[in-house]
Amino acid sequence: MQRTRKILRVDASARVTHSLSRGLGDRFLSAWRRARPHDVLTARDVGAQPPDAISSAWVTAAFTPVSERTPTQRRLLELSDRMIEELREADVLVLCTPMYNYGMPSALKAWVDQIVRIGETFTFDRARGDFPLRPVLGGKTLAIFTAAGEFGFEPGGVRAGMNHLTPHLETLSGYLGADEVHHVGIEYQEFDDDRHRRSVSRAHAAAHALGERLAARRD
Amino acid sequence: MQRTRKILRVDASARVTHSLSRGLGDRFLSAWRRARPHDVLTARDVGAQPPDAISSAWVTAAFTPVSERTPTQRRLLELSDRMIEELREADVLVLCTPMYNYGMPSALKAWVDQIVRIGETFTFDRARGDFPLRPVLGGKTLAIFTAAGEFGFEPGGVRAGMNHLTPHLETLSGYLGADEVHHVGIEYQEFDDDRHRRSVSRAHAAAHALGERLAARRD
Repeated sequence: MQRTRKILRVDASARVTHSLSRGLGDRFLSAWRRARPHDVLTARDVGAQPPDAISSAWVTAAFTPVSERTPTQRRLLELSDRMIEELREADVLVLCTPMYNYGMPSALKAWVDQIVRIGETFTFDRARGDFPLRPVLGGKTLAIFTAAGEFGFEPGGVRAGMNHLTPHLETLSGYLGADEVHHVGIEYQEFDDDRHRRSVSRAHAAAHALGERLAARRD
Repeated sequence: MQRTRKILRVDASARVTHSLSRGLGDRFLSAWRRARPHDVLTARDVGAQPPDAISSAWVTAAFTPVSERTPTQRRLLELSDRMIEELREADVLVLCTPMYNYGMPSALKAWVDQIVRIGETFTFDRARGDFPLRPVLGGKTLAIFTAAGEFGFEPGGVRAGMNHLTPHLETLSGYLGADEVHHVGIEYQEFDDDRHRRSVSRAHAAAHALGERLAARRD
Protein backbone atom coordinates (compact mmCIF):
# COMPACT_ATOMS: atom_id res chain seq x y z
CA MET A 1 0.00 0.00 0.00
CA GLN A 2 1.13 3.56 -0.72
CA ARG A 3 2.19 5.71 2.17
CA THR A 4 0.09 8.87 2.06
CA ARG A 5 2.17 11.87 1.06
CA LYS A 6 1.43 15.44 2.03
CA ILE A 7 1.44 18.22 -0.49
CA LEU A 8 1.51 21.90 0.36
CA ARG A 9 0.44 24.16 -2.45
CA VAL A 10 1.27 27.86 -2.13
CA ASP A 11 -0.27 30.24 -4.67
CA ALA A 12 1.07 33.77 -4.95
CA SER A 13 -0.72 35.27 -7.92
CA ALA A 14 -2.99 38.19 -7.12
CA ARG A 15 -5.25 36.84 -9.86
CA VAL A 16 -7.43 33.99 -8.72
CA THR A 17 -8.95 33.37 -12.16
CA HIS A 18 -6.95 33.42 -15.41
CA SER A 19 -3.72 32.98 -13.48
CA LEU A 20 -1.06 31.24 -15.55
CA SER A 21 0.98 30.08 -12.56
CA ARG A 22 -2.13 28.65 -10.89
CA GLY A 23 -2.94 26.86 -14.15
CA LEU A 24 0.45 25.15 -14.10
CA GLY A 25 -0.04 24.09 -10.48
CA ASP A 26 -3.46 22.67 -11.37
CA ARG A 27 -1.93 20.72 -14.22
CA PHE A 28 0.86 19.29 -12.06
CA LEU A 29 -1.56 18.29 -9.33
CA SER A 30 -4.10 16.69 -11.66
CA ALA A 31 -1.33 14.43 -13.01
CA TRP A 32 -0.16 13.72 -9.47
CA ARG A 33 -3.61 12.93 -8.15
CA ARG A 34 -4.43 10.57 -10.96
CA ALA A 35 -1.48 8.46 -9.80
CA ARG A 36 -1.92 9.07 -6.09
CA PRO A 37 -5.55 9.99 -5.34
CA HIS A 38 -5.24 9.53 -1.58
CA ASP A 39 -2.50 12.06 -0.92
CA VAL A 40 -3.37 14.98 1.29
CA LEU A 41 -3.38 18.48 -0.16
CA THR A 42 -3.11 21.66 1.89
CA ALA A 43 -3.60 24.97 0.07
CA ARG A 44 -2.15 28.26 1.25
CA ASP A 45 -3.29 31.09 -0.98
CA VAL A 46 -1.07 34.07 -0.20
CA GLY A 47 -2.11 35.78 -3.43
CA ALA A 48 -5.72 36.01 -2.29
CA GLN A 49 -4.83 36.50 1.39
CA PRO A 50 -1.40 38.10 1.75
CA PRO A 51 0.27 37.53 5.12
CA ASP A 52 1.30 40.65 7.01
CA ALA A 53 4.82 41.93 6.62
CA ILE A 54 6.89 41.07 9.68
CA SER A 55 7.03 43.91 12.19
CA SER A 56 9.50 44.94 14.85
CA ALA A 57 7.25 43.32 17.49
CA TRP A 58 7.15 40.12 15.40
CA VAL A 59 10.95 39.98 15.29
CA THR A 60 11.18 40.49 19.03
CA ALA A 61 8.58 37.77 19.62
CA ALA A 62 10.42 35.34 17.32
CA PHE A 63 13.67 35.89 19.23
CA THR A 64 11.98 35.51 22.65
CA PRO A 65 12.24 31.95 24.04
CA VAL A 66 8.89 30.12 23.72
CA SER A 67 8.37 29.86 27.47
CA GLU A 68 8.87 33.59 27.96
CA ARG A 69 6.49 34.83 25.24
CA THR A 70 3.59 37.00 26.34
CA PRO A 71 0.07 36.20 25.10
CA THR A 72 0.40 39.13 22.67
CA GLN A 73 3.65 37.73 21.33
CA ARG A 74 2.14 34.28 20.90
CA ARG A 75 -0.75 35.82 18.97
CA LEU A 76 1.67 37.76 16.76
CA LEU A 77 3.35 34.50 15.77
CA GLU A 78 0.15 32.49 15.23
CA LEU A 79 0.03 32.79 11.46
CA SER A 80 3.76 32.07 11.22
CA ASP A 81 3.31 29.00 13.48
CA ARG A 82 0.49 27.73 11.28
CA MET A 83 2.33 28.31 8.01
CA ILE A 84 5.52 26.72 9.34
CA GLU A 85 3.50 23.71 10.49
CA GLU A 86 1.99 23.39 7.00
CA LEU A 87 5.49 23.42 5.54
CA ARG A 88 6.94 21.04 8.12
CA GLU A 89 4.24 18.47 7.39
CA ALA A 90 4.70 18.61 3.63
CA ASP A 91 6.62 16.06 1.58
CA VAL A 92 6.11 18.12 -1.56
CA LEU A 93 5.90 21.90 -1.83
CA VAL A 94 4.17 23.21 -4.94
CA LEU A 95 4.93 26.90 -5.33
CA CYS A 96 2.96 28.76 -7.99
CA THR A 97 4.03 32.34 -8.52
CA PRO A 98 4.08 35.05 -11.14
CA MET A 99 7.10 37.27 -11.60
CA TYR A 100 6.16 40.77 -10.48
CA ASN A 101 8.71 43.43 -11.26
CA TYR A 102 11.45 40.84 -11.77
CA GLY A 103 11.00 39.17 -8.39
CA MET A 104 8.41 37.50 -6.24
CA PRO A 105 5.13 39.22 -5.38
CA SER A 106 5.29 40.96 -2.01
CA ALA A 107 2.71 38.48 -0.72
CA LEU A 108 5.06 35.56 -1.38
CA LYS A 109 7.97 37.41 0.21
CA ALA A 110 5.76 38.00 3.26
CA TRP A 111 5.15 34.23 3.42
CA VAL A 112 8.92 33.61 3.22
CA ASP A 113 9.64 36.21 5.90
CA GLN A 114 7.02 34.62 8.17
CA ILE A 115 8.36 31.09 7.50
CA VAL A 116 12.10 31.56 7.93
CA ARG A 117 12.25 31.70 11.70
CA ILE A 118 14.93 30.98 14.26
CA GLY A 119 14.48 27.71 16.13
CA GLU A 120 11.78 26.66 13.67
CA THR A 121 13.20 26.56 10.16
CA PHE A 122 16.81 27.42 10.96
CA THR A 123 19.21 27.34 13.86
CA PHE A 124 21.94 29.88 14.55
CA ASP A 125 25.26 29.05 16.15
CA ARG A 126 28.37 31.22 15.96
CA ALA A 127 30.44 28.10 16.69
CA ARG A 128 29.83 27.25 13.03
CA GLY A 129 32.15 30.09 12.04
CA ASP A 130 31.32 32.10 8.94
CA PHE A 131 28.21 30.03 8.19
CA PRO A 132 26.26 30.11 11.46
CA LEU A 133 22.81 29.46 9.94
CA ARG A 134 21.62 25.93 9.32
CA PRO A 135 18.24 24.83 7.96
CA VAL A 136 16.16 22.57 10.20
CA LEU A 137 13.82 21.05 7.63
CA GLY A 138 14.83 18.64 4.88
CA GLY A 139 13.75 15.77 2.67
CA LYS A 140 11.19 17.75 0.68
CA THR A 141 10.69 18.16 -3.04
CA LEU A 142 10.04 21.70 -4.27
CA ALA A 143 8.21 22.23 -7.55
CA ILE A 144 8.15 25.86 -8.70
CA PHE A 145 5.67 27.04 -11.35
CA THR A 146 6.14 30.55 -12.64
CA ALA A 147 4.65 32.96 -15.15
CA ALA A 148 6.45 35.98 -16.58
CA GLY A 149 5.30 38.73 -18.90
CA GLU A 150 8.64 38.94 -20.65
CA PHE A 151 11.18 36.26 -21.66
CA GLY A 152 14.86 35.37 -21.74
CA PHE A 153 15.37 35.06 -17.97
CA GLU A 154 17.27 31.75 -18.21
CA PRO A 155 21.07 31.72 -17.88
CA GLY A 156 22.43 33.15 -21.13
CA GLY A 157 19.06 34.70 -22.03
CA VAL A 158 18.60 38.37 -22.93
CA ARG A 159 17.20 39.12 -19.46
CA ALA A 160 19.33 36.65 -17.46
CA GLY A 161 20.62 39.41 -15.19
CA MET A 162 17.06 40.55 -14.48
CA ASN A 163 15.79 37.31 -13.00
CA HIS A 164 15.38 37.82 -9.28
CA LEU A 165 12.62 35.24 -8.89
CA THR A 166 13.80 31.64 -9.41
CA PRO A 167 17.42 32.28 -8.30
CA HIS A 168 16.04 33.81 -5.11
CA LEU A 169 13.72 30.85 -4.52
CA GLU A 170 16.65 28.49 -5.10
CA THR A 171 18.71 30.35 -2.51
CA LEU A 172 15.82 29.96 -0.07
CA SER A 173 15.09 26.33 -0.93
CA GLY A 174 17.26 24.93 1.87
CA TYR A 175 15.28 26.89 4.46
CA LEU A 176 12.11 25.52 2.93
CA GLY A 177 13.48 22.00 3.51
CA ALA A 178 13.88 21.20 -0.18
CA ASP A 179 16.50 18.62 -1.15
CA GLU A 180 15.54 18.97 -4.80
CA VAL A 181 14.06 21.78 -6.86
CA HIS A 182 12.14 21.59 -10.12
CA HIS A 183 11.00 24.55 -12.18
CA VAL A 184 8.53 24.98 -15.02
CA GLY A 185 7.71 28.45 -16.31
CA ILE A 186 5.53 30.27 -18.81
CA GLU A 187 7.01 33.31 -20.56
CA TYR A 188 5.95 35.96 -23.11
CA GLN A 189 2.61 36.64 -21.39
CA GLU A 190 2.51 40.32 -22.30
CA PHE A 191 3.28 39.63 -25.97
CA ASP A 192 0.15 37.51 -26.36
CA ASP A 193 1.64 35.95 -29.51
CA ASP A 194 2.57 32.55 -30.88
CA ARG A 195 5.66 32.44 -28.73
CA HIS A 196 3.42 32.82 -25.69
CA ARG A 197 1.02 30.13 -26.86
CA ARG A 198 3.91 27.75 -27.47
CA SER A 199 5.35 28.60 -24.05
CA VAL A 200 1.99 27.82 -22.42
CA SER A 201 1.61 24.45 -24.11
CA ARG A 202 5.21 23.44 -23.48
CA ALA A 203 4.96 24.41 -19.81
CA HIS A 204 1.65 22.58 -19.37
CA ALA A 205 3.16 19.45 -20.89
CA ALA A 206 6.21 19.80 -18.64
CA ALA A 207 4.08 20.34 -15.52
CA HIS A 208 2.03 17.27 -16.37
CA ALA A 209 5.12 15.15 -17.00
CA LEU A 210 6.73 16.35 -13.78
CA GLY A 211 3.59 15.46 -11.80
CA GLU A 212 3.54 11.97 -13.29
CA ARG A 213 7.25 11.44 -12.78
CA LEU A 214 7.40 12.58 -9.15
CA ALA A 215 4.21 10.73 -8.23
CA ALA A 216 5.55 7.51 -9.74
CA ARG A 217 8.52 7.40 -7.38
CA ARG A 218 8.65 4.61 -4.82
CA ASP A 219 8.25 5.66 -1.22
CA MET B 1 20.97 80.86 -5.21
CA GLN B 2 20.54 77.12 -4.94
CA ARG B 3 17.57 75.55 -6.60
CA THR B 4 15.70 73.58 -3.95
CA ARG B 5 16.03 69.85 -4.48
CA LYS B 6 13.53 67.28 -3.36
CA ILE B 7 14.56 64.18 -1.52
CA LEU B 8 12.38 61.13 -1.02
CA ARG B 9 13.52 58.84 1.75
CA VAL B 10 12.05 55.35 1.85
CA ASP B 11 12.74 53.22 4.92
CA ALA B 12 12.02 49.50 4.81
CA SER B 13 13.37 48.14 8.07
CA ALA B 14 10.74 46.68 10.39
CA ARG B 15 12.87 48.06 13.20
CA VAL B 16 12.31 51.74 13.83
CA THR B 17 14.98 52.00 16.52
CA HIS B 18 18.42 50.32 16.31
CA SER B 19 18.02 49.92 12.56
CA LEU B 20 21.37 49.86 10.79
CA SER B 21 19.95 50.83 7.40
CA ARG B 22 18.07 53.78 8.91
CA GLY B 23 21.30 54.82 10.64
CA LEU B 24 23.07 55.00 7.29
CA GLY B 25 20.24 57.03 5.78
CA ASP B 26 20.43 59.44 8.74
CA ARG B 27 24.17 59.81 8.23
CA PHE B 28 23.82 60.50 4.51
CA LEU B 29 21.08 63.06 5.09
CA SER B 30 22.87 64.88 7.88
CA ALA B 31 25.85 65.40 5.55
CA TRP B 32 23.50 66.45 2.77
CA ARG B 33 21.54 68.88 4.90
CA ARG B 34 24.62 70.54 6.27
CA ALA B 35 25.46 71.53 2.68
CA ARG B 36 21.88 72.11 1.54
CA PRO B 37 19.67 72.95 4.52
CA HIS B 38 16.76 74.20 2.42
CA ASP B 39 16.09 71.05 0.46
CA VAL B 40 12.73 69.41 0.95
CA LEU B 41 12.57 65.96 2.51
CA THR B 42 9.63 63.58 2.17
CA ALA B 43 9.71 60.40 4.25
CA ARG B 44 7.86 57.22 3.31
CA ASP B 45 8.25 54.62 6.04
CA VAL B 46 7.14 51.32 4.55
CA GLY B 47 8.86 49.39 7.35
CA ALA B 48 6.59 50.93 9.97
CA GLN B 49 3.55 51.08 7.65
CA PRO B 50 3.75 48.40 4.98
CA PRO B 51 1.66 49.09 1.87
CA ASP B 52 -0.86 46.41 0.93
CA ALA B 53 0.14 43.77 -1.57
CA ILE B 54 -1.44 44.49 -4.93
CA SER B 55 -4.67 42.57 -5.48
CA SER B 56 -6.52 41.36 -8.52
CA ALA B 57 -8.87 44.35 -8.22
CA TRP B 58 -5.86 46.69 -8.01
CA VAL B 59 -4.42 45.24 -11.23
CA THR B 60 -7.75 45.67 -13.00
CA ALA B 61 -8.03 49.25 -11.76
CA ALA B 62 -4.48 50.06 -12.90
CA PHE B 63 -5.25 48.77 -16.40
CA THR B 64 -8.57 50.66 -16.60
CA PRO B 65 -8.25 54.05 -18.36
CA VAL B 66 -8.36 56.91 -15.83
CA SER B 67 -11.64 58.30 -17.17
CA GLU B 68 -13.37 54.94 -16.85
CA ARG B 69 -12.35 54.11 -13.29
CA THR B 70 -15.13 53.65 -10.74
CA PRO B 71 -14.92 55.46 -7.38
CA THR B 72 -13.91 52.11 -5.82
CA GLN B 73 -11.13 51.69 -8.33
CA ARG B 74 -9.88 55.22 -7.72
CA ARG B 75 -9.81 54.52 -3.99
CA LEU B 76 -7.89 51.28 -4.57
CA LEU B 77 -5.18 53.24 -6.37
CA GLU B 78 -5.00 56.15 -3.92
CA LEU B 79 -1.94 54.96 -2.01
CA SER B 80 -0.21 54.05 -5.26
CA ASP B 81 -1.05 57.50 -6.70
CA ARG B 82 0.39 59.19 -3.63
CA MET B 83 3.57 57.11 -3.56
CA ILE B 84 4.13 57.58 -7.29
CA GLU B 85 3.68 61.32 -6.85
CA GLU B 86 6.28 61.31 -4.07
CA LEU B 87 8.69 59.51 -6.38
CA ARG B 88 7.93 61.69 -9.40
CA GLU B 89 8.67 64.84 -7.42
CA ALA B 90 11.98 63.59 -6.07
CA ASP B 91 15.41 64.52 -7.43
CA VAL B 92 17.08 62.12 -5.04
CA LEU B 93 15.72 58.80 -3.77
CA VAL B 94 17.27 57.55 -0.55
CA LEU B 95 16.37 53.90 -0.08
CA CYS B 96 17.25 52.37 3.28
CA THR B 97 16.63 48.66 3.53
CA PRO B 98 17.80 45.58 5.39
CA MET B 99 18.32 42.30 3.56
CA TYR B 100 15.65 39.88 4.78
CA ASN B 101 16.10 36.32 3.63
CA TYR B 102 18.48 37.37 0.86
CA GLY B 103 16.13 39.89 -0.72
CA MET B 104 14.08 42.94 0.08
CA PRO B 105 11.58 42.96 2.93
CA SER B 106 8.05 42.22 1.70
CA ALA B 107 7.07 45.77 2.69
CA LEU B 108 9.59 47.24 0.24
CA LYS B 109 8.47 44.85 -2.49
CA ALA B 110 4.89 45.99 -1.84
CA TRP B 111 6.06 49.59 -2.37
CA VAL B 112 7.74 48.58 -5.64
CA ASP B 113 4.65 46.69 -6.81
CA GLN B 114 2.48 49.73 -6.03
CA ILE B 115 4.91 52.12 -7.77
CA VAL B 116 5.62 50.31 -11.03
CA ARG B 117 2.38 51.09 -12.85
CA ILE B 118 1.38 51.31 -16.46
CA GLY B 119 0.96 54.84 -17.77
CA GLU B 120 2.56 56.23 -14.61
CA THR B 121 6.08 54.85 -14.26
CA PHE B 122 6.24 52.85 -17.48
CA THR B 123 4.61 52.69 -20.87
CA PHE B 124 3.92 49.55 -22.85
CA ASP B 125 4.02 49.34 -26.63
CA ARG B 126 4.36 46.16 -28.64
CA ALA B 127 5.67 48.26 -31.53
CA ARG B 128 8.94 48.32 -29.56
CA GLY B 129 9.40 44.64 -30.35
CA ASP B 130 10.96 42.40 -27.73
CA PHE B 131 11.40 45.28 -25.27
CA PRO B 132 7.92 46.82 -25.08
CA LEU B 133 8.32 48.37 -21.62
CA ARG B 134 9.85 51.81 -21.22
CA PRO B 135 10.33 53.79 -17.99
CA VAL B 136 8.62 57.18 -17.82
CA LEU B 137 10.64 58.79 -15.05
CA GLY B 138 14.29 59.82 -15.27
CA GLY B 139 16.95 62.21 -14.08
CA LYS B 140 17.01 60.99 -10.48
CA THR B 141 19.85 59.86 -8.27
CA LEU B 142 19.26 56.70 -6.25
CA ALA B 143 21.25 56.13 -3.06
CA ILE B 144 20.75 52.67 -1.55
CA PHE B 145 21.71 51.94 2.07
CA THR B 146 21.57 48.32 3.16
CA ALA B 147 22.25 46.16 6.19
CA ALA B 148 22.85 42.42 6.08
CA GLY B 149 23.35 39.85 8.81
CA GLU B 150 25.89 37.91 6.81
CA PHE B 151 28.68 39.00 4.42
CA GLY B 152 30.32 38.28 1.08
CA PHE B 153 27.40 39.32 -1.14
CA GLU B 154 29.57 41.39 -3.49
CA PRO B 155 30.58 39.98 -6.90
CA GLY B 156 33.21 37.35 -6.21
CA GLY B 157 32.24 37.11 -2.53
CA VAL B 158 31.40 33.83 -0.79
CA ARG B 159 27.67 34.62 -0.97
CA ALA B 160 27.66 36.44 -4.34
CA GLY B 161 25.04 34.06 -5.75
CA MET B 162 22.80 34.67 -2.76
CA ASN B 163 22.41 38.43 -3.19
CA HIS B 164 18.88 39.09 -4.41
CA LEU B 165 18.67 42.57 -2.88
CA THR B 166 20.95 45.13 -4.57
CA PRO B 167 20.95 43.41 -8.01
CA HIS B 168 17.15 43.42 -7.88
CA LEU B 169 17.05 47.11 -6.93
CA GLU B 170 19.47 47.86 -9.76
CA THR B 171 17.21 46.06 -12.22
CA LEU B 172 14.32 48.19 -10.97
CA SER B 173 16.26 51.45 -10.88
CA GLY B 174 15.15 52.54 -14.37
CA TYR B 175 11.50 52.27 -13.36
CA LEU B 176 12.30 54.35 -10.30
CA GLY B 177 13.67 57.03 -12.64
CA ALA B 178 17.26 56.64 -11.52
CA ASP B 179 20.01 57.62 -13.96
CA GLU B 180 22.66 56.75 -11.41
CA VAL B 181 22.79 54.36 -8.48
CA HIS B 182 25.01 54.45 -5.40
CA HIS B 183 25.21 51.79 -2.73
CA VAL B 184 26.63 51.68 0.77
CA GLY B 185 26.05 48.63 2.95
CA ILE B 186 26.75 47.24 6.40
CA GLU B 187 27.51 43.53 6.72
CA TYR B 188 28.28 40.96 9.46
CA GLN B 189 25.43 42.14 11.71
CA GLU B 190 24.68 38.72 13.14
CA PHE B 191 28.35 38.08 13.98
CA ASP B 192 28.50 41.11 16.28
CA ASP B 193 32.30 41.07 16.05
CA ASP B 194 35.15 43.35 15.01
CA ARG B 195 34.38 42.76 11.36
CA HIS B 196 30.88 44.08 11.99
CA ARG B 197 32.16 47.11 13.88
CA ARG B 198 34.60 47.89 11.07
CA SER B 199 31.83 47.44 8.53
CA VAL B 200 29.61 49.88 10.44
CA SER B 201 32.29 52.57 10.66
CA ARG B 202 33.36 52.18 7.06
CA ALA B 203 29.76 52.36 5.86
CA HIS B 204 29.00 55.42 8.00
CA ALA B 205 32.06 57.18 6.61
CA ALA B 206 31.02 56.24 3.08
CA ALA B 207 27.42 57.41 3.61
CA HIS B 208 28.70 60.71 4.96
CA ALA B 209 31.13 61.17 2.06
CA LEU B 210 28.43 60.29 -0.47
CA GLY B 211 26.06 62.83 1.08
CA GLU B 212 28.73 65.55 0.90
CA ARG B 213 29.73 64.66 -2.63
CA LEU B 214 26.22 64.53 -4.10
CA ALA B 215 25.10 67.67 -2.29
CA ALA B 216 28.14 69.58 -3.59
CA ARG B 217 27.17 69.08 -7.22
CA ARG B 218 26.15 72.11 -9.20
CA ASP B 219 22.52 72.32 -10.23
